[in-house]
Amino acid sequence: MASSTADRITVRGFDLAGQLMGNVNLGDMAFLELLGRLPSEGESRVFNAMLVALVEHGITPNTIAARLTYLGAPESVQGAVAAGLLGLGSVFVGTIEGSARVLQEATPQLRRGERAQEGGAGSSSVALEDLAAGIVAEYRQRRQAIPGLGHPIHKPVDPRTVRLFAIASEEGISGEYVALMNAIGVEANQRAGRELPVNVTGAIGALASELGIPWQICRGLGLMARSIGLVGHVLEEMKTPMAMEIWRQVEEEAAPQDERR
Amino acid sequence: MASSTADRITVRGFDLAGQLMGNVNLGDMAFLELLGRLPSEGESRVFNAMLVALVEHGITPNTIAARLTYLGAPESVQGAVAAGLLGLGSVFVGTIEGSARVLQEATPQLRRGERAQEGGAGSSSVALEDLAAGIVAEYRQRRQAIPGLGHPIHKPVDPRTVRLFAIASEEGISGEYVALMNAIGVEANQRAGRELPVNVTGAIGALASELGIPWQICRGLGLMARSIGLVGHVLEEMKTPMAMEIWRQVEEEAAPQDERR
Amino acid sequence: MASSTADRITVRGFDLAGQLMGNVNLGDMAFLELLGRLPSEGESRVFNAMLVALVEHGITPNTIAARLTYLGAPESVQGAVAAGLLGLGSVFVGTIEGSARVLQEATPQLRRGERAQEGGAGSSSVALEDLAAGIVAEYRQRRQAIPGLGHPIHKPVDPRTVRLFAIASEEGISGEYVALMNAIGVEANQRAGRELPVNVTGAIGALASELGIPWQICRGLGLMARSIGLVGHVLEEMKTPMAMEIWRQVEEEAAPQDERR
Amino acid sequence: MASSTADRITVRGFDLAGQLMGNVNLGDMAFLELLGRLPSEGESRVFNAMLVALVEHGITPNTIAARLTYLGAPESVQGAVAAGLLGLGSVFVGTIEGSARVLQEATPQLRRGERAQEGGAGSSSVALEDLAAGIVAEYRQRRQAIPGLGHPIHKPVDPRTVRLFAIASEEGISGEYVALMNAIGVEANQRAGRELPVNVTGAIGALASELGIPWQICRGLGLMARSIGLVGHVLEEMKTPMAMEIWRQVEEEAAPQDERR
Repeated sequence: MASSTADRITVRGFDLAGQLMGNVNLGDMAFLELLGRLPSEGESRVFNAMLVALVEHGITPNTIAARLTYLGAPESVQGAVAAGLLGLGSVFVGTIEGSARVLQEATPQLRRGERAQEGGAGSSSVALEDLAAGIVAEYRQRRQAIPGLGHPIHKPVDPRTVRLFAIASEEGISGEYVALMNAIGVEANQRAGRELPVNVTGAIGALASELGIPWQICRGLGLMARSIGLVGHVLEEMKTPMAMEIWRQVEEEAAPQDERR
Repeated sequence: MASSTADRITVRGFDLAGQLMGNVNLGDMAFLELLGRLPSEGESRVFNAMLVALVEHGITPNTIAARLTYLGAPESVQGAVAAGLLGLGSVFVGTIEGSARVLQEATPQLRRGERAQEGGAGSSSVALEDLAAGIVAEYRQRRQAIPGLGHPIHKPVDPRTVRLFAIASEEGISGEYVALMNAIGVEANQRAGRELPVNVTGAIGALASELGIPWQICRGLGLMARSIGLVGHVLEEMKTPMAMEIWRQVEEEAAPQDERR
Repeated sequence: MASSTADRITVRGFDLAGQLMGNVNLGDMAFLELLGRLPSEGESRVFNAMLVALVEHGITPNTIAARLTYLGAPESVQGAVAAGLLGLGSVFVGTIEGSARVLQEATPQLRRGERAQEGGAGSSSVALEDLAAGIVAEYRQRRQAIPGLGHPIHKPVDPRTVRLFAIASEEGISGEYVALMNAIGVEANQRAGRELPVNVTGAIGALASELGIPWQICRGLGLMARSIGLVGHVLEEMKTPMAMEIWRQVEEEAAPQDERR
Repeated sequence: MASSTADRITVRGFDLAGQLMGNVNLGDMAFLELLGRLPSEGESRVFNAMLVALVEHGITPNTIAARLTYLGAPESVQGAVAAGLLGLGSVFVGTIEGSARVLQEATPQLRRGERAQEGGAGSSSVALEDLAAGIVAEYRQRRQAIPGLGHPIHKPVDPRTVRLFAIASEEGISGEYVALMNAIGVEANQRAGRELPVNVTGAIGALASELGIPWQICRGLGLMARSIGLVGHVLEEMKTPMAMEIWRQVEEEAAPQDERR
């Protein structure tokens, strides 16, 4: 993935100093790491927007964990950031992986469906709705939440999803994965009888699929972006410490009986 | 450090199944890892007591971090425990390392002092007090806290220190490191004009020194013991979850303006 | 789980200094963390043996990871140990969890089976074999490895399993979980036509079940024990560094073209 | 740092969906996290180039650690990335922090020196060389390596440094920190009598200082960039596994006697 001689470093076939540095941005570099090629201009805009959406989420379990870790080990900024990343599992950013998986496992069926019908206007959208209905029914039967749908605050729509899908459309990157994700959202809303917007992780799962990123590594999109946000929170903790006060409050709340050393 | 054939596993020279399992306890095994030999009966009692003292400290920054991490990544118990360990740095368990270092770096001087005086009753204790005075003066001049002294709650004495030093004395393991740690405590109390008891980390730093454990790895004593406590807290979080409520409170406290996804 | 006043620390109902330190060993303390009570003498011997078996496995992916981490961040012993623990997931110590889960999910059936037959000599062992046959058949159909069976080196038996089950038997702790684990092993051997001994993780999964430890936290047994072994390896890396040489070799092997900074 | 209502998310004063997504790239977002404002066009180019330079370094201790961790815990991509980050401490990316610290602690003196001389053409550069000489002398006396200087392969110059300083110069961002870093390099070369180029971490330390990033968080630049590279390596490990073979080789090398479970 990288090689070097005294005066040249090659990263995935590119001259790092001569071709990449100063010419591509950090999001493009992430794209190169995942897909082995540089993005087109449109792909770059979409992919950077996806990552930008994930960088900063304010006070979350993982930023609190990072601050508490920094409190005990200020010699190790890397430890605080790592502790924060460790909470980005199946429950939080894992839904990017989950929604991408649903879409990527469903679309071979979709394509087979299309072929069977031998085209005709609208035939694809019919198959799409059937596919969405099947997915929603399956999750409802298992009583599981569909990954990438629903948000406690952002209702009836998640503004990040609206924006991401608009950018993707402007850049000509919106295809069957986005269509299927939206169809799943519509179906789930109807069946559940309550607002289940495609949330930011569902939107990113769909766009990652459009870009050809395998679902198995989609959790990594969250890790890339949130490590940036976590560094920001560690810097905030250096400037305006919160961790000691969090500890004090949790202790107080937990009971009068817990000790401090 | 370990080798095996089809029917025998050797760990640091011992037959694991035949000599260690069923015959030695977990603390003895930790002793073997650190010192390359099994402890005597007295050493075993002292060393196990040191580790037992560190296992469970109730609600601390690292147990909170572990619980918050588990909330986001319940598929990865190892991630929650690792996140908790990452906060065991220079500020918390690091004082074991710090106090052991002070003692281990000071005692060559102590021994030289003794030799110079050619023995005589009481000569050693005089040198010890001088050494303690020098150490305390040095820290006061640098306006640094002496590692292993002082506690917000356990005053005028830390009951764990009292117990550890009593056990060590019973087992004949209390020597010049314990004496020097105590002398430093006495001197610091007098100079500071307030109660600065030798706390549990100072006591463990002194006893680790008596046992021949290099100060460079003394932070590891905390890691060994607290990983046990952290597993306990992850189990508690499974049974009686606290993390979601901690998040809610921290968010509420931080401001009305932080978001949740 | 812990509380304190100036002169007393209470851990899970016990006076830490007065009742635990000096009286119980580190394994007993781990038992207290997991089960909320101290072990009997027999339980203590079995449980300590289980953990002792897991402490040191020589050169493994996680000890290599810990050494490589220490190479880059020697200021953070906790980071090296945490990096090592992070590899103790579904593939390695996860099989303790896996085998405990198989057993704990199967035994309600076993008990129902016994009751239905209204006892009679031998009736239980019949049910047990049927249950084992069903479990083995299910895994074979899914083409999955049964957790806790098989070992590349320790064949036809894992000496740690032999020893653990012998100790458990001596201490009167061997019951239906051990019997079912053994029955699964026998059945799997016959069906597979090759040696699939109950390995050390299967034995520990069975004994953890006998002791009442929920399968969900059984991965934690590995974390407790291996954190001790990892501290030992970090100390070895301080004394006899291997990490730089490992890096050099992997680089050389990977290609002539990888760079070093 | 972030707040939200149903239809709007605000990140550091910006409307995330309306102002940031689709308009700024990932590097700009990282700049916003560290400096609380968006970069100018020139700053964006320089800052993105700094991070791009750090993303991918091929086979390094931290990418090996990440792969080994993934081998044991494939359910936890976050654990593999976190394990990789934990090795980014004082020895590797820590030199960014180190060189930024040297520069940021030195420049108040530099400015005082300038003022004392009441300006005049060339006066600053004289002071600069004196300052550089003092710093080099100090490190030589302590027998410590100057952070940010020297490279085993990239000699007599590090091509990334050349490129970074050229971009910074084009964008008008090259100032006294870059000048001082270069002066330190020249002085160190002369005094050491061997090639000690300003390496990529020294260049980034200087440019971070130009951009106003406090040295205390400069290690975070490496964490941001390398988390992207580590995700890339985990994906590679999924596609072309290396970890098992690394383990086998290390074991073989270490001795014939180490076991595998």
